[in-house]
Amino acid sequence: MLLLANINGEYRYPGQAMVPVNDLGLIRGYGVFDYLRTYRKEPFRINDYLERLRNSANEFNLPLPSNDNIISVVKELIRRADPPGDVGIRLVLTGGTSADGMTVQKPSFIITIEKLFLPAEDLFSKGVKLLTYQYKRELPHLKTTNYQNIIRHTKLKEDNKAFDLLYHDHGYLLETSRNNFFIIKGNKLITPKEDVLHGITRKTVIELAEGKFETEERKITIEELSEADEAFITGTTKKILPVVQINDLQIGNGMPGKNTLILMDLLNKEIAG
Amino acid sequence: MLLLANINGEYRYPGQAMVPVNDLGLIRGYGVFDYLRTYRKEPFRINDYLERLRNSANEFNLPLPSNDNIISVVKELIRRADPPGDVGIRLVLTGGTSADGMTVQKPSFIITIEKLFLPAEDLFSKGVKLLTYQYKRELPHLKTTNYQNIIRHTKLKEDNKAFDLLYHDHGYLLETSRNNFFIIKGNKLITPKEDVLHGITRKTVIELAEGKFETEERKITIEELSEADEAFITGTTKKILPVVQINDLQIGNGMPGKNTLILMDLLNKEIAG
Repeated sequence: MLLLANINGEYRYPGQAMVPVNDLGLIRGYGVFDYLRTYRKEPFRINDYLERLRNSANEFNLPLPSNDNIISVVKELIRRADPPGDVGIRLVLTGGTSADGMTVQKPSFIITIEKLFLPAEDLFSKGVKLLTYQYKRELPHLKTTNYQNIIRHTKLKEDNKAFDLLYHDHGYLLETSRNNFFIIKGNKLITPKEDVLHGITRKTVIELAEGKFETEERKITIEELSEADEAFITGTTKKILPVVQINDLQIGNGMPGKNTLILMDLLNKEIAG
Repeated sequence: MLLLANINGEYRYPGQAMVPVNDLGLIRGYGVFDYLRTYRKEPFRINDYLERLRNSANEFNLPLPSNDNIISVVKELIRRADPPGDVGIRLVLTGGTSADGMTVQKPSFIITIEKLFLPAEDLFSKGVKLLTYQYKRELPHLKTTNYQNIIRHTKLKEDNKAFDLLYHDHGYLLETSRNNFFIIKGNKLITPKEDVLHGITRKTVIELAEGKFETEERKITIEELSEADEAFITGTTKKILPVVQINDLQIGNGMPGKNTLILMDLLNKEIAG
């Protein structure tokens, strides 16, 4: 839920937070974005998110303001919105309005402060089910606004009582529709490296695992899931969310694994500063 | 260039034609659309375009008003805009605003009347160059708002002095970024059938060719281009546009072919009613 926006430098409350109907972000889906959250009302690891957004922006030939500029607007948005708790921060960079409906002329940069939508608390203690699905995002290394595939498959998820789809490319696991995917085998933490978005939480978990687990960034086949002791997904709003079932396969004993719980604890301590 | 819009039933002039910044069409690229034009201020073959839009809408689980309703709004837009000549008509259906930024709750339907951007007149007599490019649209049978690939490759087109990219899937030709593709071999008109958008102009040309040419809807390989006598692309604003070069290969004698000119003439007569 939108709380406050800054659209090309102008602060706008919901109802006045509008973009022209001929923005290339709307009529041509031409946009990249990033999404982070606050803890104790401070943006978490914002420089990591901005580095990723800058990479997406470069590949779309769209200019992005300086980090200092963006951070000062984010802080002012939080100050003005004065939310009771933590918030999500969405940074959207689009092709902007265009006379001919195709040529980028005046890109648009939008920052919004939003109510956080977090997973139900019991999912962290019970774990979730994923459903494998053949799909590789068109530009997997970039965070673009193209979520057509996942929104189209809302019913597929619901019909299968799955928390999310776990994408695979001809049998090689990639990522879920919005998160990174890990398995644990013995003392090894394994996560795909190619053709996935490199999440900031993914990076944080790999850092926290150092010295405690051996991390392998490599391809994982669907078949290998049967050898996994534990599994989890990572993301900005999910943090570390245990996975206890994939399709009809139970992971481990069907409850969040002990090493997953160790990593969840380490991440919570990192977040607590 | 936007002349007048109808956004969920409200008529809006440029400057007031805005959508909420949290529309799923903008932040998630969740939208389908269609685009047609007028001749003598009357929408051309609008029922064909609406049938295609309805198919796209169904696959995105988005509701579309009745044809009668849409046609009456289109006519009112043209009446109110009172343009000096013909116009383009864009119909955009998006996921609309969403509390959680993912769930479709209140889809948005937008109709805009726009200035037509037509190819320079001399291109019809000189023909154009295409550049082959490995790419298959994610949902090739649907007209979605995802034009990320083509806008990203604007410079590639310019650097190669190409009018457009001609997509192929591992050597099998598909379509250009915005148009259908045909070759002519002897008396045969050949155009890909699978994994392409079925254009209304494509359909019109196939109808007009009946009895004069043998039409084959089938796969075409890149290698087969060297055996083509003629080539052209079809589309709403291009009508029939001759292709005289693909990469370094000259098609025919490097000028629009005689059968292409016959079809162009037939199409112009059809349009003239």
